[in-house]
Amino acid sequence: MKNLMVAQSGGPTAAINATVAGVITAAYASSKVDGVYGAVNGIQGVLDEKFIDLREKIKSTDDLETLCQTPAAALGSCRLKLKDLDKDKAQFERIIEVFRKHEIAYFVYIGGNDSMDTVDKLSAYCAKQGITDITVVGAPKTIDNDLVGTDHCPGFGSAAKYMGVTFAELERDCHVYATKAVTIVEVMGRNAGWLTAASALARVNGAKGPNLIYLCEPAFDNEKFIQDVKKQLETNDSVLVAISEGIKNKEGVYVSEQVQSGAVDAFGHSYIAGSAKVLEDMVREQIGCKVRSIELNLMQRCGGHIASATDIAESRMLGMKACQCAIDGMGGMMAAIIRKSDAPYEVTFDAISVCEVSNKEKTVPESYINEEGNDVTQKMMDYLTPLIQGENRVVYENGLPKHITLY
Amino acid sequence: MKNLMVAQSGGPTAAINATVAGVITAAYASSKVDGVYGAVNGIQGVLDEKFIDLREKIKSTDDLETLCQTPAAALGSCRLKLKDLDKDKAQFERIIEVFRKHEIAYFVYIGGNDSMDTVDKLSAYCAKQGITDITVVGAPKTIDNDLVGTDHCPGFGSAAKYMGVTFAELERDCHVYATKAVTIVEVMGRNAGWLTAASALARVNGAKGPNLIYLCEPAFDNEKFIQDVKKQLETNDSVLVAISEGIKNKEGVYVSEQVQSGAVDAFGHSYIAGSAKVLEDMVREQIGCKVRSIELNLMQRCGGHIASATDIAESRMLGMKACQCAIDGMGGMMAAIIRKSDAPYEVTFDAISVCEVSNKEKTVPESYINEEGNDVTQKMMDYLTPLIQGENRVVYENGLPKHITLY
Repeated sequence: MKNLMVAQSGGPTAAINATVAGVITAAYASSKVDGVYGAVNGIQGVLDEKFIDLREKIKSTDDLETLCQTPAAALGSCRLKLKDLDKDKAQFERIIEVFRKHEIAYFVYIGGNDSMDTVDKLSAYCAKQGITDITVVGAPKTIDNDLVGTDHCPGFGSAAKYMGVTFAELERDCHVYATKAVTIVEVMGRNAGWLTAASALARVNGAKGPNLIYLCEPAFDNEKFIQDVKKQLETNDSVLVAISEGIKNKEGVYVSEQVQSGAVDAFGHSYIAGSAKVLEDMVREQIGCKVRSIELNLMQRCGGHIASATDIAESRMLGMKACQCAIDGMGGMMAAIIRKSDAPYEVTFDAISVCEVSNKEKTVPESYINEEGNDVTQKMMDYLTPLIQGENRVVYENGLPKHITLY
Repeated sequence: MKNLMVAQSGGPTAAINATVAGVITAAYASSKVDGVYGAVNGIQGVLDEKFIDLREKIKSTDDLETLCQTPAAALGSCRLKLKDLDKDKAQFERIIEVFRKHEIAYFVYIGGNDSMDTVDKLSAYCAKQGITDITVVGAPKTIDNDLVGTDHCPGFGSAAKYMGVTFAELERDCHVYATKAVTIVEVMGRNAGWLTAASALARVNGAKGPNLIYLCEPAFDNEKFIQDVKKQLETNDSVLVAISEGIKNKEGVYVSEQVQSGAVDAFGHSYIAGSAKVLEDMVREQIGCKVRSIELNLMQRCGGHIASATDIAESRMLGMKACQCAIDGMGGMMAAIIRKSDAPYEVTFDAISVCEVSNKEKTVPESYINEEGNDVTQKMMDYLTPLIQGENRVVYENGLPKHITLY
């Protein structure tokens, strides 16, 4: 018996289940795969032997389609990082023991940097121990788009589409009143500003989009920010601002930590606000106009109903590619997207060594940010635009997108 | 010349432009209407003579369709409430002067309670002055769904669909980790809990939906809330809670005012948090598990991409009805939806006297809320479910919904 196991890890995205669907598709198509299992809650589920028989749960192409349009990890997730191989072999021994017991020959792990670290360590352990009948492969996933080695990450395109659509709608909403007002919208991203940059996609059809965009890469200057907003208010009633949650000053201190050190809540605890809330207070204090802050919070990563068709299709392809790598015995590899051209948009699906990926972060290059540090460049627009093309043909039932439940 | 003028007022919704499209459709179809104008920024635009020639802007059925899928008031909005007729006639005289100057015979005002107050006062003024050649009519709009006399309000169905879809997605997102966590989601509604109740629509396809739902109508008890959450945590890893922004204790004090009186921000100002943030702090303090608060903020009212087809079609019908009332000289009326049956869903479009509507609020009846005050009843589900049926066939361009700009 040569069984396959797939698992998911890290934060949810709208496209992570499409990768599972791709893995299942390739596994079902192969004569070299017998059982197809999902581990529940990532590598933790392997350690705990919490498995789902996917051949029982996914029986038709309809099931596969429903899986593709279901947001967030249908197999559950975890935040468990494996210990260093040199320090503690017990976890690795346990994982291999479980794999042997259930005759798992192929293991595909879908996730971000930490998950690729798991793939890296596990593959290294297998190599070191001369284990050749178990192949461990990675598939990328993250709305942060911060994995190196792949042009972009599955899940990012859908989150970027959510940004474009949402900022376009917010712009309409904020525009209706003829009074001076500032709206500051906080987007996920501690160290990489890709998703905040995607707010600029609100402009693809000629709308103004955010008036100001601050990614977390350049140093954030509070005074410059207030000047920028004042300048925008001179010519606009409504000023819409996109910021990364991780904006920080030139000393590397997060805006959310700088300003509010004195704030105390009703329980006497120091109050931790998001960056947008801090800037909201700053605008109210220093400009005095109407101001509102918005956190896009979990909605930006689980918006399956507005997923990018390009993203879902690519995620699925990467799942197939990862599965094929596993079947072909290419351990320690991660499926990746290589971009050949922006327009027409052309990509190939490849596999790269996971050790080039794990524990690294791809931040936004300088050439993608304008000189003032308050907007993106055409280069960024050329990079982003293809990723949000196409609408996933979501099937609705009783007015809501149909979702699948695996456990 | 008998010209028609339409204007929009109050907070944006995803369906308010469909009502404008309905007004335009009926106006274009009638031989009794010459020019068709939009006033920019509601009644303020009338006072300021800021007009758009809609026959120039809306020239095809494609334009009408694009208008229907454009969220937020395409003609702009205002928050201006007319003064009392007895106290200050100048505003009324000015409005009639402007109407006479531009040969406006029909005025359709789309909005909520305050806007219906404008329709009421303006109609009363016309009646008192014996003005018979100008007819003023109202069309309802509000995501709060708090207008009396109409079964529901245009804009509510789309906001309710946003709730159902978003809570279903949030449930998936919150479910992925096998750790105890509470997520508290704040929904708009100071005095009426209809939209918060719509979070329960996440259950229409069998999902669990929010574990707890607190509308603003019953008195909110902090201790009972903590007990409810603790009880839910006994059997669930992830507990999802929906609350109205306007939850208040039995003395009528908003939760957002009760708890944080001692909180001071970095500038020394008393810190005003939303209700969900206050409850988040409370859960952290008294239960100690992982907890997060989410405000659905402006996104819940301008989500045109996820509009309910039923809502858009009804909004359009109400616009046509209001226009027809104006043409027929039925001043002081508001177009309204009368529900004949829940299943099959059947409605008629009628006109009611606007004085029955203005300055009143339709809150959620007791029978729509469960006895414990922490969920809704089947009666509420029967009421809500038809309103989110059908997906508006949104036309996309370059990956984003196409919007129209009128000014």
